[in-house]
Amino acid sequence: MQFEPRATRNDIIGCLHNSEHFDYGVESWEAYKRRCLASDLIEEQRKVQAADLVIFQFPLYWFSMPASMKGWIDRVLVQGFAHNFPQCYDDGLLKNKLALLSFTTGGDEEMFSKGGVSGDIRYLLWPIQHGIMHFCGFKVLAPQICFAPKYVTEEKRKEMLTSWAQRLKTIWEEKPINCTPELYFK
Amino acid sequence: MQFEPRATRNDIIGCLHNSEHFDYGVESWEAYKRRCLASDLIEEQRKVQAADLVIFQFPLYWFSMPASMKGWIDRVLVQGFAHNFPQCYDDGLLKNKLALLSFTTGGDEEMFSKGGVSGDIRYLLWPIQHGIMHFCGFKVLAPQICFAPKYVTEEKRKEMLTSWAQRLKTIWEEKPINCTPELYFK
Repeated sequence: MQFEPRATRNDIIGCLHNSEHFDYGVESWEAYKRRCLASDLIEEQRKVQAADLVIFQFPLYWFSMPASMKGWIDRVLVQGFAHNFPQCYDDGLLKNKLALLSFTTGGDEEMFSKGGVSGDIRYLLWPIQHGIMHFCGFKVLAPQICFAPKYVTEEKRKEMLTSWAQRLKTIWEEKPINCTPELYFK
Repeated sequence: MQFEPRATRNDIIGCLHNSEHFDYGVESWEAYKRRCLASDLIEEQRKVQAADLVIFQFPLYWFSMPASMKGWIDRVLVQGFAHNFPQCYDDGLLKNKLALLSFTTGGDEEMFSKGGVSGDIRYLLWPIQHGIMHFCGFKVLAPQICFAPKYVTEEKRKEMLTSWAQRLKTIWEEKPINCTPELYFK
């Protein structure tokens, strides 16, 4: 998918709400209400709206998602559609949906453990799971992590796929994880 | 700056190292060694190489940097240039340089406090300060944060700029913050 990651003035069709001072957050919110958002954003919002569960699948790049996916977040989850202060976190507009992160890493599980050189992998997921997913109201399911698939055996890679397929069979029965600041870092 | 944020095959000039199986990390590393990286990346690497202090200035988007800046990280800080396992973290290739995050937020300081709805702002900076800056060897200076400039008085905004200007006068005397997993979350 050749999705444009840059949030710019091009995302608003026609006149701006305030042409003196461009504020992307304000302009995309106003454009959403006036139905003047660029068509690629409307198309993506339709897909989100139709989904009961959104799976973000990516390779971990620099302790986060690649820029191409971050651009999807920056551009698609606009105010009015995904949140609308004070409708955020538990009251976010996507609160009847589930979401989870499914990703591959370069480093192995030990590196991403609490005592490992990169620290507990849950720490680096915090801005995404709380600041993006929870902020929009998604109930966040536990992440699906494939550690270092590049460096393990073919057999181990197959096991990773099998366990993912197995999990998906009963995913609707899973309980969300807690994404509040008080409990996440316990 | 119209910098391309997507890390793709276009970043490698000419033949690939392995045309059967495209791996961006491997290909950009090999291209760096063979001096076959796209010219916009080489130009950015020259700027980083010439700098004693790199300041990442951005508006906080979704608990992180905007995709346009994440794309700069994904594409510019390639293996061989910024790190080269095991040369990472304290031994990262940019270890003789300083770096800091300077950013504006939408939410106010209370929201980003330990007991606030968004949690301690240091938590969301972890993947960037440790996973990107520290990983490449940068000594990380304390972040410069302007909370909610959009919602404060003109006087307060001027104060934010003055204190930043003031800080820059003696920035070379500052001691780096500690970005190890053991100490960061204390």
